[in-house]
Amino acid sequence: MDGKLIVFEGVEGSGKTTQIQKCQEWLQNCDRLGGASVVVTREPGGTELGVGLRRLLLEGHRDLIHDRAELFLYASDRSQHVEEVLKPQLAKGAIILCDRYTDSTVAYQAYGRGLNINLINQLNQLATDNLESDLTLWLDIEVEIGLERARQRGAIDRMEQADLAFHQLVQQGYQELAAAYPQRIVRVDASKSQEEVQAQIQEILREKLG
Amino acid sequence: MDGKLIVFEGVEGSGKTTQIQKCQEWLQNCDRLGGASVVVTREPGGTELGVGLRRLLLEGHRDLIHDRAELFLYASDRSQHVEEVLKPQLAKGAIILCDRYTDSTVAYQAYGRGLNINLINQLNQLATDNLESDLTLWLDIEVEIGLERARQRGAIDRMEQADLAFHQLVQQGYQELAAAYPQRIVRVDASKSQEEVQAQIQEILREKLG
Repeated sequence: MDGKLIVFEGVEGSGKTTQIQKCQEWLQNCDRLGGASVVVTREPGGTELGVGLRRLLLEGHRDLIHDRAELFLYASDRSQHVEEVLKPQLAKGAIILCDRYTDSTVAYQAYGRGLNINLINQLNQLATDNLESDLTLWLDIEVEIGLERARQRGAIDRMEQADLAFHQLVQQGYQELAAAYPQRIVRVDASKSQEEVQAQIQEILREKLG
Repeated sequence: MDGKLIVFEGVEGSGKTTQIQKCQEWLQNCDRLGGASVVVTREPGGTELGVGLRRLLLEGHRDLIHDRAELFLYASDRSQHVEEVLKPQLAKGAIILCDRYTDSTVAYQAYGRGLNINLINQLNQLATDNLESDLTLWLDIEVEIGLERARQRGAIDRMEQADLAFHQLVQQGYQELAAAYPQRIVRVDASKSQEEVQAQIQEILREKLG
């Protein structure tokens, strides 16, 4: 059996990490999987190379990295992740829960930073070797609420230091992506309680994974 | 006055570093420059970001980095270098002596590793924002001699560990590039003594820089 690539997307503070963890627990106790393993991973930083790149991207050199240089770093991280983790795990039939993938690059770099969207789509195709997610769960939350949540948990990183207007553009990116790819991207109302959000996710997965 | 971007290319052990240093000394004592500054730089590693990337590329993770991931890392390094160093220095009228640039990526990644050359040309254009060298000096030396020189100076890095066949392909890449772009790429016979090689370089620069 081929595996499934399930991607979690959303602005800062949308609850991706918590929901992925809950989803992993649920899937691991789920009879219907027939023994398929559940793999949790993320971009950037899902490989050894990626950890080094994530450090460069989010921790060091913050304001020194030029937009295009940043874009290529994400592409490098993604390419390595696809070859080292995603493809082999899918071949083994794993259910992969991935924190961010190609839509993040469109939302953050094209909508947020204003880089050319055709260039970004091209780079995404090259970096992924055309591997698309089977399902992308967009955890939709108001930007102000998400950023406040992120601040409360003390998770201030590069993206979270950028201004509100930037995150509003990112949010617009997710809205337009969800409208453009309704088969692949499913919206989840992430403003609800953790339990209610997880219930929505499980319902979508039951329907999509059969 | 606009500056000039002069790139030094060639296989390992072709003498780029030595010749760049000699060329810098000569240019700095050269009346004809009219006070233009001479800047020596390199790829990868010509910026602070680049130093981190160079470490990832050449020192750590050697055999773990997937071909496309590597290609994107070079593109990131190049993009940052163009924006942070090359463009501003050219705008100030500097003569830039750069150790490796876009032709290295064609020779090593397309010819050497067999990656798609159209993809590489596209990435080079994106990474450089279409900034080409004014002159590329190809230090042509037989691969066996070059590798032996590199080993003698103890400079074993990632490229130098690869096998001879790989470097022969790289060499073929340089040959075909020089044939395809005779206006931009000028061959230097690097099998001669350091002094003779430098004399050739100075003659070419006198002619090209006027």
